Amino acid sequence: MSEINNQNNKTPWERVAGNGLLSRRHLLGLSLAGATGLIGSRVLAADASRVEIPQWSKRPGRDPSAYGSPSGFAQDVRRLAGNPNATLPGSGVSRTPLHLLQGNITPNSLHFERHHAGVPDIDPAQHQLLIHGLVRQPLRFRYEDLLAYPMQSRIHFLECSGNSGANTSPQAGDSSAAAIHGLLSCAEWTGVKLSTLLEEAGIAEGASWVTSTGADGASMGRSIPLNKALRDVFIALYQNGEPIRPEQGYPMRLFVPGWEGNVSVKWLTQIKLSDAPANFRDETSRYTDLLPDGRALQFTFPMGVKSLITSPSGQMQLRRQGLHEITGVAWSGSAAIRRVEVSADGGRSWADAHLEGTGQDLALTRFRLPWLWEGGPAVLQSRAIDAAGNVQPTRQQFQEIYSPANRFHYNAIQSWSVSEAGEVKNVYA
Amino acid sequence: MSEINNQNNKTPWERVAGNGLLSRRHLLGLSLAGATGLIGSRVLAADASRVEIPQWSKRPGRDPSAYGSPSGFAQDVRRLAGNPNATLPGSGVSRTPLHLLQGNITPNSLHFERHHAGVPDIDPAQHQLLIHGLVRQPLRFRYEDLLAYPMQSRIHFLECSGNSGANTSPQAGDSSAAAIHGLLSCAEWTGVKLSTLLEEAGIAEGASWVTSTGADGASMGRSIPLNKALRDVFIALYQNGEPIRPEQGYPMRLFVPGWEGNVSVKWLTQIKLSDAPANFRDETSRYTDLLPDGRALQFTFPMGVKSLITSPSGQMQLRRQGLHEITGVAWSGSAAIRRVEVSADGGRSWADAHLEGTGQDLALTRFRLPWLWEGGPAVLQSRAIDAAGNVQPTRQQFQEIYSPANRFHYNAIQSWSVSEAGEVKNVYA
Repeated sequence: MSEINNQNNKTPWERVAGNGLLSRRHLLGLSLAGATGLIGSRVLAADASRVEIPQWSKRPGRDPSAYGSPSGFAQDVRRLAGNPNATLPGSGVSRTPLHLLQGNITPNSLHFERHHAGVPDIDPAQHQLLIHGLVRQPLRFRYEDLLAYPMQSRIHFLECSGNSGANTSPQAGDSSAAAIHGLLSCAEWTGVKLSTLLEEAGIAEGASWVTSTGADGASMGRSIPLNKALRDVFIALYQNGEPIRPEQGYPMRLFVPGWEGNVSVKWLTQIKLSDAPANFRDETSRYTDLLPDGRALQFTFPMGVKSLITSPSGQMQLRRQGLHEITGVAWSGSAAIRRVEVSADGGRSWADAHLEGTGQDLALTRFRLPWLWEGGPAVLQSRAIDAAGNVQPTRQQFQEIYSPANRFHYNAIQSWSVSEAGEVKNVYA
Repeated sequence: MSEINNQNNKTPWERVAGNGLLSRRHLLGLSLAGATGLIGSRVLAADASRVEIPQWSKRPGRDPSAYGSPSGFAQDVRRLAGNPNATLPGSGVSRTPLHLLQGNITPNSLHFERHHAGVPDIDPAQHQLLIHGLVRQPLRFRYEDLLAYPMQSRIHFLECSGNSGANTSPQAGDSSAAAIHGLLSCAEWTGVKLSTLLEEAGIAEGASWVTSTGADGASMGRSIPLNKALRDVFIALYQNGEPIRPEQGYPMRLFVPGWEGNVSVKWLTQIKLSDAPANFRDETSRYTDLLPDGRALQFTFPMGVKSLITSPSGQMQLRRQGLHEITGVAWSGSAAIRRVEVSADGGRSWADAHLEGTGQDLALTRFRLPWLWEGGPAVLQSRAIDAAGNVQPTRQQFQEIYSPANRFHYNAIQSWSVSEAGEVKNVYA
């Protein structure tokens, strides 16, 4: 533990000059300035007397605006929206472009989407949340009623349990990090604790499950145990400070920290206490884990410990030898991320990455480690370990537990191969 | 300290039922359920058998999109953009609508703006950063050069040193929290440590200041001491995960944690090491602090410890007696926020608020405290204390130090009066 903490107090760059395992054999003894020199081909010596003045420096720019948008030169930073499905209208996804982002927070416009009947356009003045079932007093809340309750703000990741399912295929596809893993985002959510509302309604004898239903055309519903609902579940009204986006359930969604995204029911309109799960359509048709013997696990709620190198990653091209920062994100639905290890040789040797968290459990944790690429082939991997001691499995370890046909809760180590030509590809190692 | 921590482990609601000073005389002994009942008029008993199905639940909604936007029903959550100034083209501001937001993160589209020559539309492929002056080797960096360097991600507030200046006026204006204090935002910024680039260039003998210049039409420039530059300053390339917005300096800005916003030079194009500050126009014409004797303080860099109740706040209307959550944000340019006290009687008595931080220093810290309003007049105040022991001053204490004409670095306690009719107004108390 203390060794890990010592590592983490150093900047990535200090670790290059120090004892970062990935670069030790190349960089030991180099000074910091010597190390940065390895990016040298991209740094031009300057002639300070010849500063060209661009057009935009010669006139005033545009005035302030009421609601900003990205630069026209950054239009490639977009979600990967799937094609509409004609036979299932409204069923679709868009993925967060993880390989183009940095840090831990996902901006609201790029938070991943997964809809079962599209995005309803809800008038909050006409929306109601009903709490009923095994309660002493059924209650109905308008949006503005909930705004009057005490709130809490928490930074949490959200991951679809179908995320990364592409890599359960026997053949690794030549895909980007976003295409494979982009059903993952992280935001600061603010809302009303569900326990506050349930205590007001009064929990009746025998209640042990909470079922939630959305106001979308699919009436998407899910069940969670009451003890989780009382522990840390809340009704999210704000996302990164502003009212939650329509794609995220405006005007309100359930938020179930650490658990598969589907249980954080969007456009929340009903909460019913019961003595058993509802076995909604989406609790049997999807989100279950097929086992080798043909049985399936139901209600696999916490997302497994997981990490992903976002750069370099699939479909990228390394354009020079020398130093590269390996960076990515790690998360676990059970506990805070304690450690992320990185390998450049397909898992034979590992080095501890530098961690940058948000100070909150069940949130993304950014990791970074410098890597010296000398032009040879390499296989990059990351392995996350959480505070509960859970270790991210290899693909082989994952496959030994589940049926080859299982598509959900895939959290195995991602391998990116780097060719001698610098091409980065998704591989199974 | 342990008492504060104990307080902060409780939820706001538990503190109502417990020992929150603001409500003690009203609520002592009430159960949690009894306390929530005080919002009772807004909670309707439900007849579960009569659930009306709205139109949007009867058909599929819209498909996923590449870049999302807020609900059409949330169009009031907008920046307050000032009117264009005909005699100073491009000089202007827009303010963050703090009273409509929650949590600590400001979404990118609502981050405040302050421009001296408008927002330039910069092509990153044509933009360069020159590092020169007292360095051993001048260096020039393209945008894509910087993307190859190791980065760091940090959550930091940014505040214009002219923020809250309206309250230096002898007459309190009937303004909103955003109109008075909206030159304040907080985001997760990612970029390259300036120390990394300066060590690569090599710091020459005698260098003690760093001057930075933007590529805007004003060539906005500022100077900071070298020791701060080496401590925690970085060149920000990402804002809440995505490339920084044009209004925030796309493709790159200096970021100087905790210091007045103006020194975090946007559209950064030159960094020059020198043995003295440059005394740029904006280091004398503005951002100095006028003293009673006619002299002025220059280079007041760290923003003072400060807090602000965002709800209830100016121009709001309390529509019912009963429980209200008092909430707001606190920050300091010198250290983490240790404590926020709240008063409902104009500063005669105080209670500790519950704090929700980001785990990072020099970031906003959300505070919350329940308050029972029984319909009488009240004056709401908050007072922040940071880990360095700095205490937010009263308006009178601030005014004793500076000239009445001073407009910068105003960090005094904000007072909101609540009338018997529930009207909330900006007052000097």
